[in-house]
Amino acid sequence: MIQDTLKTRVIGIDISFNVTKFAIVDIRGNIIAQNEFLTTEHPTVNEYVSYLSDQIIELVEANGGYETIRSVGISVPSGNFLTGSIENATNLPWKGIVPLAALLRDRLSIAVALANRAHVRALGEHTFGMAHGMKDFIVITMGYGLGSCFYSNGHAHIGANGFGGELGHSCIVEGGRLCGCGKQGCLEAYCAHKGIIANAKSVMEEFKDTPSIMRDLPELDPQIIQECCDKGDELAIEVYRRTGHILGVCLANYASILNPEAIIITGGISRAGHWLIAPTTDAFEEHVFRNIRNKVKIFASRLSYGGSSDVLGASALAWHVKEYSLFK
Amino acid sequence: MIQDTLKTRVIGIDISFNVTKFAIVDIRGNIIAQNEFLTTEHPTVNEYVSYLSDQIIELVEANGGYETIRSVGISVPSGNFLTGSIENATNLPWKGIVPLAALLRDRLSIAVALANRAHVRALGEHTFGMAHGMKDFIVITMGYGLGSCFYSNGHAHIGANGFGGELGHSCIVEGGRLCGCGKQGCLEAYCAHKGIIANAKSVMEEFKDTPSIMRDLPELDPQIIQECCDKGDELAIEVYRRTGHILGVCLANYASILNPEAIIITGGISRAGHWLIAPTTDAFEEHVFRNIRNKVKIFASRLSYGGSSDVLGASALAWHVKEYSLFK
Repeated sequence: MIQDTLKTRVIGIDISFNVTKFAIVDIRGNIIAQNEFLTTEHPTVNEYVSYLSDQIIELVEANGGYETIRSVGISVPSGNFLTGSIENATNLPWKGIVPLAALLRDRLSIAVALANRAHVRALGEHTFGMAHGMKDFIVITMGYGLGSCFYSNGHAHIGANGFGGELGHSCIVEGGRLCGCGKQGCLEAYCAHKGIIANAKSVMEEFKDTPSIMRDLPELDPQIIQECCDKGDELAIEVYRRTGHILGVCLANYASILNPEAIIITGGISRAGHWLIAPTTDAFEEHVFRNIRNKVKIFASRLSYGGSSDVLGASALAWHVKEYSLFK
Repeated sequence: MIQDTLKTRVIGIDISFNVTKFAIVDIRGNIIAQNEFLTTEHPTVNEYVSYLSDQIIELVEANGGYETIRSVGISVPSGNFLTGSIENATNLPWKGIVPLAALLRDRLSIAVALANRAHVRALGEHTFGMAHGMKDFIVITMGYGLGSCFYSNGHAHIGANGFGGELGHSCIVEGGRLCGCGKQGCLEAYCAHKGIIANAKSVMEEFKDTPSIMRDLPELDPQIIQECCDKGDELAIEVYRRTGHILGVCLANYASILNPEAIIITGGISRAGHWLIAPTTDAFEEHVFRNIRNKVKIFASRLSYGGSSDVLGASALAWHVKEYSLFK
């Protein structure tokens, strides 16, 4: 087993609907080399896998060689950790069930683990972030969708079929707004990208006589609304106040079941910072079960998601692969 | 360690607000001997512990002797597994924090583990019931209160402070019915004992012109309403239909987060059987995240809670005590 001890590096891959990022990461979490390409340029899975593996081999051969690489970890929307497949992703070019881990393992001949973004981020927060040393915590990812992953007694909860953590599809209003999943009244329809824009429209409608910078903008998105908050725009602040209130009640219900040590909010929408976190915390403390009131910390992640954090999280998954996969 | 191998029995204790049951249970789950007394006759904890330990010693000495007993497990409302204490129980004579496990351990000089009823029932279902062999499942207890416990990857989830599983205090209607915990709109205020009676009253109010046996009864409780269902009473059936609908939506949200293999409903109210389970399942399948639709089994427990099942569950807890407690 001397050979194994030389394998001090892994590959972390982060696949999003537009960009695929990948990096060689050492055992201390240092990125040795990285690269990226457009996901959208590869409409068929076979072509994508072929291109990705060629790119990885090229990067690896220029940086220490193949024998230093232990395993591969992938972060991908709708990734199922138990099966190693992407399952019915709504915003990727490949439809249905895609056995990505197996396809890549066959090309590279090393172990590959795959998980959805919330799972990888929870692992990232546990390994490199604010959840280090925690045994019970929740990570929420807020972007185009709303996902979650929690740790129970030191381990990521996966669920019987690998579909744990779908907080975004909790029903919060029976017969409410239509969600992308086909159901009505899901949390995601109120607190993710589109939901926040809808909240802004209904706030502007409701307070017709209140002036707002938002009214003069050609297009709205959560980032722009946040910038309006920073400028002191009352209605923009009200948008995040409502979003935070809805999220806070949901998180209170989640926490009443889980009794976590902390809830960490990640993803693009978490950049709204205190405009979101303050009303979320208020609604949370008002609605959570009294025995855990003031015991659960809620904060925005300090890892820079969108930068290289997801690649780092995926590399953390790669270190776990021996436990679960080929060599089990 | 030869002596330890002789210890093939444990004590299971089930404390409810009126009766305390205790039994000597062998390694196969056979009850060797049992007894019970009224909890309410012992207003102070010290007196209660003194009486309970005398009773246990008496039972043990008449049945194989003290050297056969390995440990003690206790099922008690508001029991905190992490601290071994009863914490702020609302329906027991002893108020505040009661370190019951420590008090009893000091009297008996053997290891004592303590947990709340939902936790003990989940353990019971896992050891003796329908959850045998399952790694991810939820147990719901419906009686005067509404509690829950879930298993994640083969282990009962406890939570950072020992307060996991408080499904009953999920907020389902903001500003809704007042709950015993002081909050408004908790699930418990709609789907536990008092909540079901309140549902019956509002159904009778709403359908003023529909005849119902329930109108002529001096008093209502969930059991009586169930008997009315069995007689074909339309409004009584509507009461359980509404209760089941509310429960089903909540369980769908719970399951979207956990992706369990099964949800097992226990406690007095589960005796309503299909009057409750059918509408619960309908609402569940309608609201659950599509990836797990038709994958989660929902059923009423087949263990006879109220009989000796809670004592058996507590005995299962006693076998786990070495892992967690004194001998860790």
